Order: sequence, then structure tokens, then C-alpha cells
Amino acid sequence: MTTRHPLRVGLFAFDDVEELDLVGPYEVLAAWSAVSALRPEVLVFSTDGNGVRCAKGLRVVPDCSREDADDLHVLLHPGGKGTRRLAEDTTHLSWLRALRPITPLMTSVCTGALPYAAAGLLAGRPVTTHWQAVGELTALDPSVQIDTEARFVDDGDVITSAGVSAGIDMALHLVARLESTAVAREVRRAIQYDPAPPV
Amino acid sequence: MTTRHPLRVGLFAFDDVEELDLVGPYEVLAAWSAVSALRPEVLVFSTDGNGVRCAKGLRVVPDCSREDADDLHVLLHPGGKGTRRLAEDTTHLSWLRALRPITPLMTSVCTGALPYAAAGLLAGRPVTTHWQAVGELTALDPSVQIDTEARFVDDGDVITSAGVSAGIDMALHLVARLESTAVAREVRRAIQYDPAPPV
Repeated sequence: MTTRHPLRVGLFAFDDVEELDLVGPYEVLAAWSAVSALRPEVLVFSTDGNGVRCAKGLRVVPDCSREDADDLHVLLHPGGKGTRRLAEDTTHLSWLRALRPITPLMTSVCTGALPYAAAGLLAGRPVTTHWQAVGELTALDPSVQIDTEARFVDDGDVITSAGVSAGIDMALHLVARLESTAVAREVRRAIQYDPAPPV
Repeated sequence: MTTRHPLRVGLFAFDDVEELDLVGPYEVLAAWSAVSALRPEVLVFSTDGNGVRCAKGLRVVPDCSREDADDLHVLLHPGGKGTRRLAEDTTHLSWLRALRPITPLMTSVCTGALPYAAAGLLAGRPVTTHWQAVGELTALDPSVQIDTEARFVDDGDVITSAGVSAGIDMALHLVARLESTAVAREVRRAIQYDPAPPV
């Protein structure tokens, strides 16, 4: 296996992925790629390389298949209702287990933590997930330590984040960790991320 | 022309649309549709109904063409580098002008304000845009009154928002305005929008 890129980041798209789980981090990471000295490669892939229909109905065409998304430095597994099926899909879980030893950083957004837990990757670890999925995550692996207050939990080679929009914050953290706080701030400024929820 | 739906919301997708400009509001509005008593119809359309390649490379397949996205109650025009071309596209500008009298609410995210300004729709109005596009917007229409501090500006039948991620806040405002603060809070909770930028 040749190393295709020093810093390859793959976002996994699947049927019933939650739209913002995928595109929030994608925006941050792609904006990072545009300004970074490290020039990370950011790609979206699906299992078979075909397009997916997201949870709310948006259709997205990935860059490549799972097979071609190899040599990842970072895997980002979004959430969405499709994760329940993935958490029972033995092929998907075997793929996640095979990735673990060769992928320095495995990250999830929202219920992306469910397949990770089902694959046994979160055993005994501090994690987080969507507030509504705490029970499901515990049922999959009672040994996980769920932080229900955290926006994201960085446990070294695993980073999990809270629901949907939390992926944006987690992705900014990734930029800061993998490059620098200064570059992460530049990305934040580029996407004018000065959130002010009006309700 | 028959009214297809009492509350039809159309998000315009185009080549070089900024990913989060489109998908941030889409997530909010689709999450609204899932819980709303008004059952808004939320659709993504492109000029010809074909797929688009977004500014950072993501490919999105719309629900329909511009022609089929008629009878809109709300138009949402995202930004992205493709707006510079659209602001010089006389067909696009004619379409925007034709929509104005039949579309109760025209909204923009980020540089989506540029085609609106080029079409003459923002003359003399208080508006906002991405912080980097203030000069471009003024050049297109010196009569616009740009609020560089606002997250979004609601001027009745036009709502403009600041850069990229500001579309999420604007969309939550739309939900509050068109249905209720309580429902907008429910949407906010569903997407766990308790932003905490780590940098």
C-alpha cells in the first residue's frame, strides 16, 4: 500500500446520513484544505461509490468508493438514522475494525458513534453522541462513558461529537489539533462562524 | 398557476454554491418540516434540474429544475463563488426579478445577496452579506445599507444573512417567524445547535 497523501481525511456518506452531520464538517475541513500549509486531501466516499440519499432527502454524489478511500489519516463517520442499520451490518463493522489499526484518528458526529460502539471500538472510553441516542449507545456497549454535556470528546485516537451541528465544532478542533489554533481561527473566520442562535 | 403547497420553500443550488450556505439552512428547514404543524415543503432545485458541483467540490443532485420550483413562498439563495457569475447572468437576474412580485419572502445567505443586488432587489434596503463581500455588494448597488455586525437582517419581504454559517441562524429565524419560537426551539434542539466554537 502506497501512501497517497500525507494527510488524507475521509468523510463517509451513506443512505440516511444526516445532512449537516456530513456537510458541516466537510465545509470546515475543505475550507481548511484551501488555506492549509499541510494541504490535507478531503474526500467524501460511500461504500460502493454510488450516490446516497440523506436522511432528510438531499442527494449527494461521493468522490469515490470505500475501497478507493484507503490510507486515511482521519475517518469521519457522520450520524443519521441510517446508523441503526450500519450498527447491525456485519460487513460495515468488519470494515471499521479493519480500519482501526491503520487509521490514526477515527472520529464521529452524532449517532456515528453507534456503529463505532457496535464494532467494539469505544469500549471503556469517554465519548459523546446525540442527546437522544444516549440510551441506544449504552445498549450497544454498556462500558462506554458518555459525557452528555460535552460538545465533543477527544480521547486521543478517537473523537466523538454530540448531535448534528456539533460536528462543526469538532471539525474546527481537528484543524487546531492537526495544524494549529491560528489556522483553525482562519477557517472559522472564512465560514464566518460567529453563531448567534436567534431562539 | 395552481398553488402546489401552502408553504413551499425552495433552496437554489448552482455550480460553485458554498456547501454550508446550502446545507445549513436545508438541515434547519427540513428538520422544521419534520415537526411542523404547517408541514412546509422544502425542496432543492437547480436551473436545469441537473446536479451541481459545489464550491469546495461536493456534488449535490437537486429535487427539480427552476421551472418546477414554482409557487414558492420562500426562496433561499445561497452564496458561494458561483454568485459572481450569476450576478452577471441576465437570464438569472430576469428570473429573480420575475419572482419578486410572486414570492412573499426572498432570502439570501452570504454572497447570495450579490445576484439580488445585481437584479435591483436590494435598492435602498438594510442588508448583510459575507464580511469579505461588502465592497462587491456596494459596487453592485451603492444604495444598499450594509449592516456588517448583523448575523442576518430581516427587512420584511427580504432577509439577508452574513457569511456561510450565518444561514443556520437565519433559517431558525425563518422557522420562528413563519411558525413559532417554540417550534424553532424544537428544531434547534433536534440538531443540537448549542454552538461552542473551540477556537
